[in-house]
Amino acid sequence: MIRVTIWNENYDERNGVKEVLAVHPDGIHNTLKEIIEEMDGVEVRTATLDQPDCGLSDEVLEQTDVLVWWSHKQHDQVPDELVQKIQEHVLKGMGFLPLHSSHYCKPLKALLGTTCDLAWRDDCYERLFCVKPGHPIAQGVPDCIEVGIDEMYSEPFDIAETDELIFVAWFDSGNVFRSGCTWTRGYGKIFYFQPGHETNSSYHNPAIRRIIQNGVRWLYNPKQRTTLGSPHVEVTLEEQRKQEK
Amino acid sequence: MIRVTIWNENYDERNGVKEVLAVHPDGIHNTLKEIIEEMDGVEVRTATLDQPDCGLSDEVLEQTDVLVWWSHKQHDQVPDELVQKIQEHVLKGMGFLPLHSSHYCKPLKALLGTTCDLAWRDDCYERLFCVKPGHPIAQGVPDCIEVGIDEMYSEPFDIAETDELIFVAWFDSGNVFRSGCTWTRGYGKIFYFQPGHETNSSYHNPAIRRIIQNGVRWLYNPKQRTTLGSPHVEVTLEEQRKQEK
Amino acid sequence: MIRVTIWNENYDERNGVKEVLAVHPDGIHNTLKEIIEEMDGVEVRTATLDQPDCGLSDEVLEQTDVLVWWSHKQHDQVPDELVQKIQEHVLKGMGFLPLHSSHYCKPLKALLGTTCDLAWRDDCYERLFCVKPGHPIAQGVPDCIEVGIDEMYSEPFDIAETDELIFVAWFDSGNVFRSGCTWTRGYGKIFYFQPGHETNSSYHNPAIRRIIQNGVRWLYNPKQRTTLGSPHVEVTLEEQRKQEK
Amino acid sequence: MIRVTIWNENYDERNGVKEVLAVHPDGIHNTLKEIIEEMDGVEVRTATLDQPDCGLSDEVLEQTDVLVWWSHKQHDQVPDELVQKIQEHVLKGMGFLPLHSSHYCKPLKALLGTTCDLAWRDDCYERLFCVKPGHPIAQGVPDCIEVGIDEMYSEPFDIAETDELIFVAWFDSGNVFRSGCTWTRGYGKIFYFQPGHETNSSYHNPAIRRIIQNGVRWLYNPKQRTTLGSPHVEVTLEEQRKQEK
Repeated sequence: MIRVTIWNENYDERNGVKEVLAVHPDGIHNTLKEIIEEMDGVEVRTATLDQPDCGLSDEVLEQTDVLVWWSHKQHDQVPDELVQKIQEHVLKGMGFLPLHSSHYCKPLKALLGTTCDLAWRDDCYERLFCVKPGHPIAQGVPDCIEVGIDEMYSEPFDIAETDELIFVAWFDSGNVFRSGCTWTRGYGKIFYFQPGHETNSSYHNPAIRRIIQNGVRWLYNPKQRTTLGSPHVEVTLEEQRKQEK
Repeated sequence: MIRVTIWNENYDERNGVKEVLAVHPDGIHNTLKEIIEEMDGVEVRTATLDQPDCGLSDEVLEQTDVLVWWSHKQHDQVPDELVQKIQEHVLKGMGFLPLHSSHYCKPLKALLGTTCDLAWRDDCYERLFCVKPGHPIAQGVPDCIEVGIDEMYSEPFDIAETDELIFVAWFDSGNVFRSGCTWTRGYGKIFYFQPGHETNSSYHNPAIRRIIQNGVRWLYNPKQRTTLGSPHVEVTLEEQRKQEK
Repeated sequence: MIRVTIWNENYDERNGVKEVLAVHPDGIHNTLKEIIEEMDGVEVRTATLDQPDCGLSDEVLEQTDVLVWWSHKQHDQVPDELVQKIQEHVLKGMGFLPLHSSHYCKPLKALLGTTCDLAWRDDCYERLFCVKPGHPIAQGVPDCIEVGIDEMYSEPFDIAETDELIFVAWFDSGNVFRSGCTWTRGYGKIFYFQPGHETNSSYHNPAIRRIIQNGVRWLYNPKQRTTLGSPHVEVTLEEQRKQEK
Repeated sequence: MIRVTIWNENYDERNGVKEVLAVHPDGIHNTLKEIIEEMDGVEVRTATLDQPDCGLSDEVLEQTDVLVWWSHKQHDQVPDELVQKIQEHVLKGMGFLPLHSSHYCKPLKALLGTTCDLAWRDDCYERLFCVKPGHPIAQGVPDCIEVGIDEMYSEPFDIAETDELIFVAWFDSGNVFRSGCTWTRGYGKIFYFQPGHETNSSYHNPAIRRIIQNGVRWLYNPKQRTTLGSPHVEVTLEEQRKQEK
């Protein structure tokens, strides 16, 4: 059973922004919840910025195997103390799936060590090419996906060198972008995936939905740890003697 | 002093194909020779398929620090014995720079272990984005280069996982391509660079010229080896005793 | 159901080498078969050099999801035509798990493009450290495994840059080795794992057995392909028009 | 001209710890200064924790191409504001060379996003193996270096996946360690190198000195930037129109 928590800043939705509610009547977090609930062997909950502890209490984080994240305008409203807790949970094995404008969220910046800057433009036509077609995250999707209209993100994308580059986007504005990237940090895995502007309907695209589902499954690490990092202790003589047995 | 050898199949040129001679009056190898000769500290020679030993005798290979390669229709005319010699020289430290349609040359396939297949189309508009702007090969070129009209190559590109991905191409046909890729094999480095169809003038683009020059410099390994691989010998007691001194 | 084929040169065994039969009474392939048969959802067969087609007919290869390989002295007896078929099956999605002295087998050399040379020594004490503890192949094994006596392999190991380095070995002879390495080629994955000299009993070590089982599961790609490489065809106008729909 | 700044916490030295002063009579920073000054085309200065602004004012950072770092017990005395400035300079192109116990310094943790934990032990015998012998940082040193007695560091080492792994250490205590690692962040490069405990004389070992010199040269990026990250701005129609010219 993979325990998935979907976090959304839920800002435009609470402020009744019509263009967003038209695509996501119950909020982006519930659109994503529907996608994950199509999977077998998952348990899904949602959390939003407006809830106590931003919806991410220690209990909730303890019970989360994969954290899906969507934020855009409220990145700075996430307390640094929570950011550090999320980072520590990733290092202990929690999967992390920041979507679209979450490229700019504090937890991803803290895990990558870069600015995560990019250039952008609204409403461009996007095609997504798979450059690692044998990867589990690419299972069951065509080598080229017609995303349709979404927000354009453009290189240079200021990220740490990817462990794996899986998808590269083409935009009719004349731009390309590393849209599907993975990294490992400690026992945890990270998958950044670009599509999903709040006013576009990419999350209703079957191929995009499949990639998010594949991502959640790939991010799941059954070997959760209770401690952080390696034991920062002195190695004793016992260890040295082991080999002489 | 970097000793550069530029190899060209020189097929269209010898057959008087007007469209090619219009862009490369003295052959593609001489167009490339002009580019390299703009550099300081280089010694350049050319070699072509029609010469004895395909222009690549043991002596020539021994005296080559960086081998620049351009082939398109005559890949199969390169003898397997020569392909193996080239591969061995790369493993010993010779740099290798296959250009454009040379993605399909035998030496690159032998070094990567894949088919190097792709999809293509003539005369599309190309823009080149740098995704690793701090890399020596990207020095002095803008983050986005307007290549203009060149042959479109499209993902999926069936190559071994790159050590470094430096450039990604955008084509107005709706395609993207990993246009600047590096790999290490033994003591040698490889840089594949996509622009340069025989009937297009990309090699007259200052940014493309600069990238080829940067590539030659980056590929140069002063630590050439005389033997191939590691010493495949038994480690003696002497080695074990070293540490007890 | 993962269909696993275990290939062994079966040379010492057929020649009645006592030291080998003492550890592997039914041959190394059957020792490995026992390990894989402890897994759920697998179907295992063995094949040996002495069989027709080296035991690897087109039918067998077609029905193989993961190929486990053990060879030592008979590498050169594997026909180049079979090597090419194995390489093509890997590129189409077959997993490949060369063990111990198979670092030197023809299919691995063809897939990596290097000599795969190393230095070695018999009967040293080995400890195996995990440097990527969150990886599926490392699930359920300690960060440091006491392998015991096995053949020492030493750096420099002349391989293509690894996609992932999972295990590094320590030997009391004063040597280290990249003992657990992965690569991707086309749709296929490769996992090289060093322990398992024919006269040592590493394959009876529970942690080593678990790693081999994890490796088989990780190597399995359900998305097998029927064609090799990308479609090396011209992209038609249709494709260009797609985006304008 | 490469402008190198060597930073040292200078704590044991100021407190007159005999064992340290016996090896580094003028402080570790001056031992390192001697090493760098053997190079051509460098300009070296030192900075220590006890100086105003920890010796790293904005002016000093602006004038630094490569920052060499040595800290052990005083990591926490480096203000977070300075850590952020160092990180930003790396992202803009400053090279960073943290040595030995600096694996644990705040700037490296901020750039990698991990704990950088490890296990350790004093005074073990170390041998250093090169696993990427063609790399510029390995130029002119043997494939196996007898370091002698130094502090043992052991895997698992909790770092971000390396861009390049160049050296792996063997210790007679029965441990291995990724002793020479590189990463890219933004326009900057990072090289972590393990040898150099304060009471051991590794920095007097010619091969270790050569590696530090090679590292400084490799870390140097002549393409310094004035701005941080990519321009996080909206792409205008002008850019879209470029391609139609």
